[in-house]
Amino acid sequence: MHATPTPPIEPRAFGVGGRITLSVMSDDYVEVILGALDAAPSTGLTVETDPISTWVTGHEQDIARYFSALISSASAGGHHVVATVMLSRGCPGEVTCERPEHPPVFSDAPLDVPRTGVDALAQWALYPLDDHGTPERNADHMRDIYAAIDDAKATGTYVGSDHYVTRLSGDVADIVGTIAGTWAAVGRSVAHVTTHATISVNSPSVTR
Amino acid sequence: MHATPTPPIEPRAFGVGGRITLSVMSDDYVEVILGALDAAPSTGLTVETDPISTWVTGHEQDIARYFSALISSASAGGHHVVATVMLSRGCPGEVTCERPEHPPVFSDAPLDVPRTGVDALAQWALYPLDDHGTPERNADHMRDIYAAIDDAKATGTYVGSDHYVTRLSGDVADIVGTIAGTWAAVGRSVAHVTTHATISVNSPSVTR
Repeated sequence: MHATPTPPIEPRAFGVGGRITLSVMSDDYVEVILGALDAAPSTGLTVETDPISTWVTGHEQDIARYFSALISSASAGGHHVVATVMLSRGCPGEVTCERPEHPPVFSDAPLDVPRTGVDALAQWALYPLDDHGTPERNADHMRDIYAAIDDAKATGTYVGSDHYVTRLSGDVADIVGTIAGTWAAVGRSVAHVTTHATISVNSPSVTR
Repeated sequence: MHATPTPPIEPRAFGVGGRITLSVMSDDYVEVILGALDAAPSTGLTVETDPISTWVTGHEQDIARYFSALISSASAGGHHVVATVMLSRGCPGEVTCERPEHPPVFSDAPLDVPRTGVDALAQWALYPLDDHGTPERNADHMRDIYAAIDDAKATGTYVGSDHYVTRLSGDVADIVGTIAGTWAAVGRSVAHVTTHATISVNSPSVTR
């Protein structure tokens, strides 16, 4: 007899997912947004659009690829597009939630998001919300946040710090990869982590 | 001889401020956004617009009034507008910061934001990030977050919970007042608090 393996926790059950709002500065915004939602491959994800945003849940890499494809698709016609993005893990509900002592790791591989050829700017914040309050865990999460900033510098997306946020610049895939990759990495030591970013494409303002 | 009173800490020195990105779904978005930035009264605030967002620092009530005026002004012509809003207190910089053991309270009065007559929908998240890790402080911040939700219910803006966020509906002033008022209230017991919201006006989607 073999022992029955414990079924792995699914990303959805641990609250791994995100929200995206695409804003298109054009009279034909409805057509552009619906076109991007139709065009982006959502393989492996659960996707629901409500009046304010589109919610997705699934594996980190699938979410990152989907968000990158949505933003680059909406921007392809040259319109100025702003994407409001959040990612969350560790709390499926609204206010509180029971979490395991050690958060599950779904994949140790770096995220792979195909280049889009579309340049963007972003302001980004990363929030470790629950590390069970011990000094060791606090040290862990600060280590992971510094590692996140170092990762952003290594990928070349890091521009500098603005008040309350970090500014990123680069291909949409690299920006989404930085945001999602660091969120997933910090999630290895912190049970509840969220990240928010405002991503701007084709802005008439200066580009960096 | 009288003792010299300790000068009160200024909101800016404690990192009290916010960012807003106005997205206007129209070919004339530049004119509408610049017009809203010109029209909204920024009395008492420091305001700086960069390529991605507008940063403000100052007292909570002045920030709430400014954001409400910006959103309602940009929406006045009937355009579909999405405002991406963040508020932050307790960390003027990017990653880490020294904070006092007891956060300063700038005002105990409820925020007063004049009604705009413009209805909006929002998805909102509130993040208490640093309560010095003691069980008492944890109990404090959960109490304050439940109080925040109760406040939202009392003001009539609360609609329900979506994944990772709370949905709000009502006059732009009431929505901004809920977001800023609860952020300020939680800030009385938690040294570092941020909140993020996506606020949508004149959406062609259903309105609640």
